[in-house]
Amino acid sequence: MKRRKFVAALGVGAGALAVSACNSKTDSCGPDGASGTGAQNGVMADKKQTYNWKLVTSWPKNLPGLGEAPERLSRIVKEMSDGRLNIKVYGAGEIVPALEVFDAVSSGVSEIGHSGAYYWKGKAPAAQFFTAIPFGLTAQEINGWLHYGGGLELWRELYDDFGLIPMAGGNTGVQMAGWFNKEINSLEDMKGLKMRIPGLGGEVLRKIGGVPVTLPGGELFTALQTGTIDATEWVGPYNDLAFGLYKAAKYYYYPGWHEPGAMLEFIFNKEKFNALPADLQAILTHGCRAVNQDMLDVYTAKNNDALVTLVEEHNVQLRKFPDEVLKELRKVSHEVALGISETSPLTKRIYDSVMKFKGSVVNYHAISEQAYLNARTL
Amino acid sequence: MKRRKFVAALGVGAGALAVSACNSKTDSCGPDGASGTGAQNGVMADKKQTYNWKLVTSWPKNLPGLGEAPERLSRIVKEMSDGRLNIKVYGAGEIVPALEVFDAVSSGVSEIGHSGAYYWKGKAPAAQFFTAIPFGLTAQEINGWLHYGGGLELWRELYDDFGLIPMAGGNTGVQMAGWFNKEINSLEDMKGLKMRIPGLGGEVLRKIGGVPVTLPGGELFTALQTGTIDATEWVGPYNDLAFGLYKAAKYYYYPGWHEPGAMLEFIFNKEKFNALPADLQAILTHGCRAVNQDMLDVYTAKNNDALVTLVEEHNVQLRKFPDEVLKELRKVSHEVALGISETSPLTKRIYDSVMKFKGSVVNYHAISEQAYLNARTL
Repeated sequence: MKRRKFVAALGVGAGALAVSACNSKTDSCGPDGASGTGAQNGVMADKKQTYNWKLVTSWPKNLPGLGEAPERLSRIVKEMSDGRLNIKVYGAGEIVPALEVFDAVSSGVSEIGHSGAYYWKGKAPAAQFFTAIPFGLTAQEINGWLHYGGGLELWRELYDDFGLIPMAGGNTGVQMAGWFNKEINSLEDMKGLKMRIPGLGGEVLRKIGGVPVTLPGGELFTALQTGTIDATEWVGPYNDLAFGLYKAAKYYYYPGWHEPGAMLEFIFNKEKFNALPADLQAILTHGCRAVNQDMLDVYTAKNNDALVTLVEEHNVQLRKFPDEVLKELRKVSHEVALGISETSPLTKRIYDSVMKFKGSVVNYHAISEQAYLNARTL
Repeated sequence: MKRRKFVAALGVGAGALAVSACNSKTDSCGPDGASGTGAQNGVMADKKQTYNWKLVTSWPKNLPGLGEAPERLSRIVKEMSDGRLNIKVYGAGEIVPALEVFDAVSSGVSEIGHSGAYYWKGKAPAAQFFTAIPFGLTAQEINGWLHYGGGLELWRELYDDFGLIPMAGGNTGVQMAGWFNKEINSLEDMKGLKMRIPGLGGEVLRKIGGVPVTLPGGELFTALQTGTIDATEWVGPYNDLAFGLYKAAKYYYYPGWHEPGAMLEFIFNKEKFNALPADLQAILTHGCRAVNQDMLDVYTAKNNDALVTLVEEHNVQLRKFPDEVLKELRKVSHEVALGISETSPLTKRIYDSVMKFKGSVVNYHAISEQAYLNARTL
């Protein structure tokens, strides 16, 4: 991929990036609420009618990982529906700019969108909780919370006012902390650090004395190279290698404390979705679930090879944040998330739900996933 | 659930428990090979024909977690196909015993099966690699290997001789090491340990001086209570609480080194699958993918609450294996897997593929998933 074209089309940080759907606030729906409700509300299947739908995204077409998911949904829905539901995917800027996906689907300009919920914090602060919370849930955990911990019902409730139905649209897994031209050996080194880091992570950086910078994707590489910024986060090896960031920075820091499992979203225009026959509603709902897993599979497989290339071919130097820095980032991350929770009663309910889930899953994963990974590298 | 009924029906260890499908050895198929091939080979969709299929399983009907997945596949396939493909689920022993699922689907007695590949090691030693390898891949990692690391193509090749198409059928996540009435403080304590532990884990135990015991599920609880065995592995808190094992053992050990992400399998009779219309093939393929993720979501959410109940209400004592024991188990696990790899050229190719993937994903996850989980609990 041509980097220039990619970043121009992107306009927003891919590195700044949730999910399934119910039709009303009162539905008590499980992970298949959309189809469940669909089965009640959807019209009887009309086998003769063909639907031609649009899907707008916040990424350039076929951006590695993120951009592959909507194309995949389009393909598998066409296969499963025997061509009755055709979805044409549009990259950022083709119909609407990257950051107007939410409005475009809400208003019915497009039937489906693929984006990241945290872009919509201006409309609903709680949306951020459905992408990633610094020091929050991993990909496996956020899927558990969404589908069996009450997360999805809350997300539907949040988007219902906008005439939207959300579903999980993929996950990047734990990201990298980012590309740095300044070595971080203590908390003191974070003071004054000019870093392009959007969302909640940026708020955390500000609170510990850093300077979060907002930059369009197109200016990021040069800003890093010329020293206008000291650091930037992006995604992980698979995307970062394609973006060429190793050419503009000395150190590649980990772990990605700010986005420990960034969830993407599919959003559907509620009125259009509810007017579909029940079988097509089910195909969309379960198709999204399949695509949601597929993206994590892509990242899990492709980050490995990309990391090897970065380290062995491009001599990238890996660095881990000192414990002192990680502990402070964690403490401040909790304060920032708590602050957002106070913006509305629904935001508070969402915050309480995700934090209750986190409290217990951290304990269980300490003796399962975490204990196992550590035993493997003893 | 009545435990007596459950264990009687089970007959085999649920705790001893792998996935998408291609139709020929020469197909170069991605994660959707089955539907891809299906689209070429499947007959034109006949909207009038209704298919009534059977699905036999190795579990009692609706066993928590494992037994929920086939019911879920049946339900979502019915929804997506608008009733054209109806799948009736049979528990272990209803049509065929738990350990005859493979043969029943291979011979066409049943069109679909849900089981664990490692039960079929007598037919193909490599099958074990598609459930879990001691000190091998986690759930996230095995999904990456299968769908984007070449694993699935190899699994299809392995099962092709039996007229079967395999697909991933869920994952338990990292399991617990098991229930013990003897404390393990050193390698010496593993000598002579009589433990019910099937599969590769049992081989490893034998090599370090323990005594792996094979016991039908129905005798397990009493054997543990009376001291006939010192320990048993099962699954994790969600299943173990339902099974009541805390009543028969003093200590609950972690981590589950022997099954760090046990994958279940859906198996399809190849001839029957290929005769389906292409859209129904796609619905099965992507439906399996959705169910595969769903099971992990169930375990991720429900193990937490079950662990809290075990510890707080039943005073279960958690114990971690000493590092000395874990290191030796890891060393011997590699020897056992390597030994199996030498049984046939195909087995060797499968072993080489999974081990190559593991080599790189361990490095990447050391700085992502693992580093993050550790930072979260610093």
